[in-house]
Amino acid sequence: MRVSEQLTKTLREVPHDSEGGNQELLVRGGFIRQLTSGVYSYLPLGNRVIRKISQIVREEMDRAGGQEISMPVIQPKDMWDRQPASGPSRTEAMGDVLFKLKDRKGRDMVLLRVREFIMKDLYSFDADAEGMDVSYRKMANAYRAIFTRSGLRFIVIQADSGAIGGKASQEFIAITEAGEDDAMICDRCDYAANREKAEFVRTEFEREPEETLEEVYTPNCMSISDLAVFLNIPESRAMKTVCYVAGGRMVLAVVRGDLEINEVKLSNTLYHEGVNAADLHLATAEELVRDGIVAGFTSPLNKDEYVLIVDDPSLKLGNNFVAGANRVDYHFKNVNYLRDFRVDVWEDIASAYDGSTCVRCGGTLHAVRGSEVGHIFKLGTKYSELFDATYLDAEGVAHPILMGCYGIGVGRIMATAVEQSHDEKGIIWPFSIAPYHVALVGLDLEKEENRQAAEQLYADLNTAGVEVLYDDRTETAGVKFNDADLIGLPIRAVVSKRSLKNGGIELKLRSQKESRIVPLTEAVQVIRNEIRQGIAESV
Amino acid sequence: MRVSEQLTKTLREVPHDSEGGNQELLVRGGFIRQLTSGVYSYLPLGNRVIRKISQIVREEMDRAGGQEISMPVIQPKDMWDRQPASGPSRTEAMGDVLFKLKDRKGRDMVLLRVREFIMKDLYSFDADAEGMDVSYRKMANAYRAIFTRSGLRFIVIQADSGAIGGKASQEFIAITEAGEDDAMICDRCDYAANREKAEFVRTEFEREPEETLEEVYTPNCMSISDLAVFLNIPESRAMKTVCYVAGGRMVLAVVRGDLEINEVKLSNTLYHEGVNAADLHLATAEELVRDGIVAGFTSPLNKDEYVLIVDDPSLKLGNNFVAGANRVDYHFKNVNYLRDFRVDVWEDIASAYDGSTCVRCGGTLHAVRGSEVGHIFKLGTKYSELFDATYLDAEGVAHPILMGCYGIGVGRIMATAVEQSHDEKGIIWPFSIAPYHVALVGLDLEKEENRQAAEQLYADLNTAGVEVLYDDRTETAGVKFNDADLIGLPIRAVVSKRSLKNGGIELKLRSQKESRIVPLTEAVQVIRNEIRQGIAESV
Repeated sequence: MRVSEQLTKTLREVPHDSEGGNQELLVRGGFIRQLTSGVYSYLPLGNRVIRKISQIVREEMDRAGGQEISMPVIQPKDMWDRQPASGPSRTEAMGDVLFKLKDRKGRDMVLLRVREFIMKDLYSFDADAEGMDVSYRKMANAYRAIFTRSGLRFIVIQADSGAIGGKASQEFIAITEAGEDDAMICDRCDYAANREKAEFVRTEFEREPEETLEEVYTPNCMSISDLAVFLNIPESRAMKTVCYVAGGRMVLAVVRGDLEINEVKLSNTLYHEGVNAADLHLATAEELVRDGIVAGFTSPLNKDEYVLIVDDPSLKLGNNFVAGANRVDYHFKNVNYLRDFRVDVWEDIASAYDGSTCVRCGGTLHAVRGSEVGHIFKLGTKYSELFDATYLDAEGVAHPILMGCYGIGVGRIMATAVEQSHDEKGIIWPFSIAPYHVALVGLDLEKEENRQAAEQLYADLNTAGVEVLYDDRTETAGVKFNDADLIGLPIRAVVSKRSLKNGGIELKLRSQKESRIVPLTEAVQVIRNEIRQGIAESV
Repeated sequence: MRVSEQLTKTLREVPHDSEGGNQELLVRGGFIRQLTSGVYSYLPLGNRVIRKISQIVREEMDRAGGQEISMPVIQPKDMWDRQPASGPSRTEAMGDVLFKLKDRKGRDMVLLRVREFIMKDLYSFDADAEGMDVSYRKMANAYRAIFTRSGLRFIVIQADSGAIGGKASQEFIAITEAGEDDAMICDRCDYAANREKAEFVRTEFEREPEETLEEVYTPNCMSISDLAVFLNIPESRAMKTVCYVAGGRMVLAVVRGDLEINEVKLSNTLYHEGVNAADLHLATAEELVRDGIVAGFTSPLNKDEYVLIVDDPSLKLGNNFVAGANRVDYHFKNVNYLRDFRVDVWEDIASAYDGSTCVRCGGTLHAVRGSEVGHIFKLGTKYSELFDATYLDAEGVAHPILMGCYGIGVGRIMATAVEQSHDEKGIIWPFSIAPYHVALVGLDLEKEENRQAAEQLYADLNTAGVEVLYDDRTETAGVKFNDADLIGLPIRAVVSKRSLKNGGIELKLRSQKESRIVPLTEAVQVIRNEIRQGIAESV
């Protein structure tokens, strides 16, 4: 492709609606264009990247025995409304991430997801749990192959199944500071989990003899740390009680003062207890007043009428806690379970933190930021029971099918690849997903000799099947080099008066600083070798 | 692919919601499945056909210098509402073929087209009309190549530009009786046009001396043919007046009694006259009464207050017409233009008919039914002026860009290929777009010797890169042959006790009746030759 004939140009200015990071580089490089907030067109360069990634995904899915189908975006709403006897319908559970609309005949339809994105989904169907496990492992391996081949640095973590549900789930997280996901990774074993899901060992402290409950005046103690300083106790000696409302009921969630409540764990706990947690939210001032709770000074004492959820490991490892007295500026000391308060549910509802202890090996968990590029689930029979999807065994008896589901965000791979691999000048594409492999930069083209050399190399590279973007414009060297760096093709080949005088073309990898001169007669072969090596390195 | 591992099965029964024709064959063969009326999923076989067609389209577009992009389905409505100073907005002009919905922030959005389908669009942008013509011809040639390579029998016809507008347009019509489009083709020259657009020569008849206008009693004459019999005149001596309403105005359309009014031509004529014809419809009984018009006995006489559109060629070729007297059971004889009525617009508003005369060469036009698989338009500056899309010439002066637009229905190619090529047993795929090239049917597989031969051939074909669907099930020969015929792969290779005894495999083309024995050692080579030849024949 000649740059002079390309549909799009690079942008020298940062667009006014730039979101920074990979989005800005992709927009400035002419890969994508924003149509409206969060909605993009893929321009020729971006479209090539997406097609390269799609091809990697397709090859690995084919290799793993996948069979490709494509389904409509718009579907009858009633398909989404089949539901178990109780609980919210799926259109309700999905909330406003589903577009709802009517077709010409007035039938209710839904349009999958609010924002358009390109993704690959795969479903596995097995007769038993062992088969499901085999399919799941096969897909986990295929996913590793896909992200590796796409040049991503990623980790695989235990994840929460969320609204999709099921028995087990793993996320593939591309590591990047700009990511929106938090993962905890052990520095000793291979335990890694989403922060929403991560388990950890609570630190212990010495149990004391149980002492008498005592109400104390605690002025100006608006936080656990205020309280700890005022009473000269470690924060882990305080009880942290947070009031939520879910399904119309007041829920008191309690953890030790040195920990934070994890709303995803809390929500899952509520679901398991049969409470609809779809509308889980911090209790409002009105809701607190209605239920006679004093904000900032709550505790589980004398709260039998509410749902009490308590973080099991943290509050069983200690006693004589300090807890709110439900009266402004007063707390109880020496609060003890059984004697002073009762609990509905003991469950892990606290968030792991950077430096917490691994439940598997006692190593240390570290927080890592990243971006989810894939997610796999063992669904079990959740959906097959809902939709009566059964198979007949050898005796002709029907059983529900065991399902798995597996999703990859194709556009997300492009975005995180850029996020992981760029410098201040622009993108540095991995060979495997680069839109072209070679930026052929022709300089001093007004001289027939130089133009002929550049045109000949362009023709030779095309003949050899090398994907090359040839900058044949009448622009300065500075403009052309800046554009080449911004677009970020892995190999830059310069044909100029100077390079020819020095004996050939000037070859440089985008990822390196040094260039070298390669004789014109060897250029095609050297470039093909660089490409072969570059692609091989990511596999 | 092994049939035993394939996601989908063929259906022996016709589905209860079958639409017949290609749809029924594709559903029964397991290529597509209906989700809801008019909305289909592409199953693995159908998906492979779509990918084959897409690859042909992509190759021809690349060859013609196309640059591929992909754009969101959902777009802000205001983009569609930019419009010229007068006339309906585009969202109004598109009517209910556009989905309208709101995004999460309440912004108005549109979703392109009501029914989902796969299509390729291309737009060309040129500086002048000559450039636009070059682009248009280049695309017309690429389209011919695409449909030829896809194995379709098609014609290219002059078409009406419809709501998209522009200066010239051609449709690519795949010929099939089940199609929804009517085309007229000349049997002598290469003139071919959509029936909505086709021009034709009106038959002449002898002019008479003008005679005196006379009102006559014509009882029981409810049609032109009744009238012709009653008055003993040819139908071409009568005037046929049909009352329409468009943009709130009564429009009288008049043609000679032997012709039919063409509503598309009429609508275009109204647009050119500045009348909004978006709601063009036959006048209702109420509208006729309101305007004092007697249904069935109307004529242009004394109708100065309405818009009169008269078919130019037909009514200028004659005089002393019979026309309605606007009174039940009465007509005028000897009606003549100028003396008896005035006309607002003379224009071609009559439909060509099977057997009418070609305007180009005097040959005969024949009606052909078909299905539109592609449509190309010279748009000129219609949209570039609307969106201020300009280029700067060498002097820095801005000019509107000249555009062309070009669309192919990818799913439609699959459907019409099946419509054109099937028999009572099932589909007969062209080699170029067949989901696999070979149906390998293994019989008597309970015998190890037979199974080994079949498995070995399957492995060898895969190794040779041949696309093969291997029926390895434990089904009868009848079931397997019926399925192979229904699915319609171009080559059937049978490995059975009998074929092995006869010296190898039994090879048969789906399009032919005869089979032949090919030695096992030559099978791969013979099959590869058949495929090469089969694909070459369509190019």
